[in-house]
Amino acid sequence: MPGVVGTNQANPSDRSGKTGDPEPTALDRLASLVMADMDRVNRAIIDRMDSPVEMIPQLARYIVASGGKRLRPLLTLSTARMLGYEGDAHIGLAATVEFIHTATLLHDDVVDESALRRGQASANELFGNQASVLVGDFLFARAFELMVESGSLDVLRILSRASAVIAEGEVLQLSAQHNVATPESVYMQVIESKTAQLFAAACEVGAVTAGANDELCDSLRQYGLALGLAFQLVDDVLDYSAEQARLGKRVGDDFAEGKVTLPVILAYEAGDDAEKAFWRRTMQDQDMREGDLAYAQKLLGRHGTLDAAMNRARSVATEAAALLQAAPKGPIRDSLTDVLTFVVDRDY
Amino acid sequence: MPGVVGTNQANPSDRSGKTGDPEPTALDRLASLVMADMDRVNRAIIDRMDSPVEMIPQLARYIVASGGKRLRPLLTLSTARMLGYEGDAHIGLAATVEFIHTATLLHDDVVDESALRRGQASANELFGNQASVLVGDFLFARAFELMVESGSLDVLRILSRASAVIAEGEVLQLSAQHNVATPESVYMQVIESKTAQLFAAACEVGAVTAGANDELCDSLRQYGLALGLAFQLVDDVLDYSAEQARLGKRVGDDFAEGKVTLPVILAYEAGDDAEKAFWRRTMQDQDMREGDLAYAQKLLGRHGTLDAAMNRARSVATEAAALLQAAPKGPIRDSLTDVLTFVVDRDY
Repeated sequence: MPGVVGTNQANPSDRSGKTGDPEPTALDRLASLVMADMDRVNRAIIDRMDSPVEMIPQLARYIVASGGKRLRPLLTLSTARMLGYEGDAHIGLAATVEFIHTATLLHDDVVDESALRRGQASANELFGNQASVLVGDFLFARAFELMVESGSLDVLRILSRASAVIAEGEVLQLSAQHNVATPESVYMQVIESKTAQLFAAACEVGAVTAGANDELCDSLRQYGLALGLAFQLVDDVLDYSAEQARLGKRVGDDFAEGKVTLPVILAYEAGDDAEKAFWRRTMQDQDMREGDLAYAQKLLGRHGTLDAAMNRARSVATEAAALLQAAPKGPIRDSLTDVLTFVVDRDY
Repeated sequence: MPGVVGTNQANPSDRSGKTGDPEPTALDRLASLVMADMDRVNRAIIDRMDSPVEMIPQLARYIVASGGKRLRPLLTLSTARMLGYEGDAHIGLAATVEFIHTATLLHDDVVDESALRRGQASANELFGNQASVLVGDFLFARAFELMVESGSLDVLRILSRASAVIAEGEVLQLSAQHNVATPESVYMQVIESKTAQLFAAACEVGAVTAGANDELCDSLRQYGLALGLAFQLVDDVLDYSAEQARLGKRVGDDFAEGKVTLPVILAYEAGDDAEKAFWRRTMQDQDMREGDLAYAQKLLGRHGTLDAAMNRARSVATEAAALLQAAPKGPIRDSLTDVLTFVVDRDY
């Protein structure tokens, strides 16, 4: 489990891509450039999840503190700073972005019936589905309170729109669940909506807060969108290829839940009749047997679809580097460029 | 099931408090005073629940069109009009208020595992819990998009705050579930947060939109709060006393779910040891047997706690009438006054 930013920094070997390799990742370097800001964001998160209703801070603290990468708020902080912003508004907005993300995670885990999140028992496993639904609602509402405090209608438009699109993406994913013949285009729409839109909004909000012109705001939005797409494409590959201990969730979760991702879509398309029948029996009909996950992984290997999905991620990420050209040169821009490679090359 | 406002007006006898009595209720009279506005709100609701993701309008239409009283948006429309507002912003805000309410209903039904809502199968029963959670999130996000369009930061502050307090109230209610020794003060806090705050915000937003001074905005907010408290107090009585066919949900739902409301709190306090043991066995330990609901109703009757809760509602409502004195005289103010009595005297 990565502890790049946040409280989970006891073991330095956890902080890089490979165990025993102390070299900082691109994400670590980016985080170190806005470390003081991120400390303030973490304090804002703790402050604003407070409530006289005890169950709220209990559950919220559990999920917010459970070692996430804080990648999304990092994007808001670093885009704002890269563009020379010297005010305070980016702190609350970065916290807002993390609250929206956290609310989504809580509801995702209920919908997916996940038992693990970031290597620990998920909140719904510990506190129950009812609490997860309602505390997710609270965090979402609190996110809106926080963004209203920013006082910027432009920012409010971006983040309220992103929230609606995320929810649309989640519903679309649910509609496509168990359908092994899901078109690639629907998969791409799902990951753009449920994941990439918040990355895009996180970057755009940083740029808008820094007072950047429309063109630069849009370029950074597009950068965030590409980063998010690459991130989710790789996530969906890791669900089949990662080592359990490093991934922080169960390998094969998507397979078990019948969540149809690009590697499966491509393998289904390329498969013969027997293989198609296997995918239908398992992911569609949810008739799961001993050895099915291993056989699924073998089929993905046979058709090279994990590599194909990785190549897609790499190509999206590579193209996005050009979008940073209009931003001021410097260590933040360099790190944001390197993060594009990092999200593709990570093994967790 | 009342069809005061909305599509469900086929049977005029449904539109008043008593079957066979064609006299319009106070709510009908209020609705008729802003009928043109409410038609626009209904169109805005239909328009804005649309999405290319089919499951969203399917489920949203089901719940929004299933015959709610539209009481909350009615408050926004009528307070704005009572104060002479002649613009358009109140339409979108009334729709926003209904979207927040609808999102809450969807999540409530998941949390309560309710099978009936307004006399029909609840959305989670028909579409599944997963869809209800995610479409609820969509409606909530869409509500925020709508309110951002209003362009008023004051309105955004009121409604984002109300949303967070509603979620807090829902979590508090969950924390108190099955606890028959719940203090009255906690019950009052639950109903103020989960119900009355949105009534209060609906009225305040109407007043703010009409440009009323702070004092009048606050009076109307307090009016809404009192109306919401009375409404929920009566709702919780009807859960034990109503006729099934008129109520539109199952009588005894709160009892079955272990949701501890004022009549039970008072009966538990007043009960002897055997009665206390009965409440603990049923509501706390959820060991439910044939005849338990009838016996529970008998105990509430023995200690007069349904009447006590009704008196509480009546007293809250009566005191609130004075809050309307500062508003301009006229048919809307009269109807808003009468609605205080209506929510107490209704039998559904």
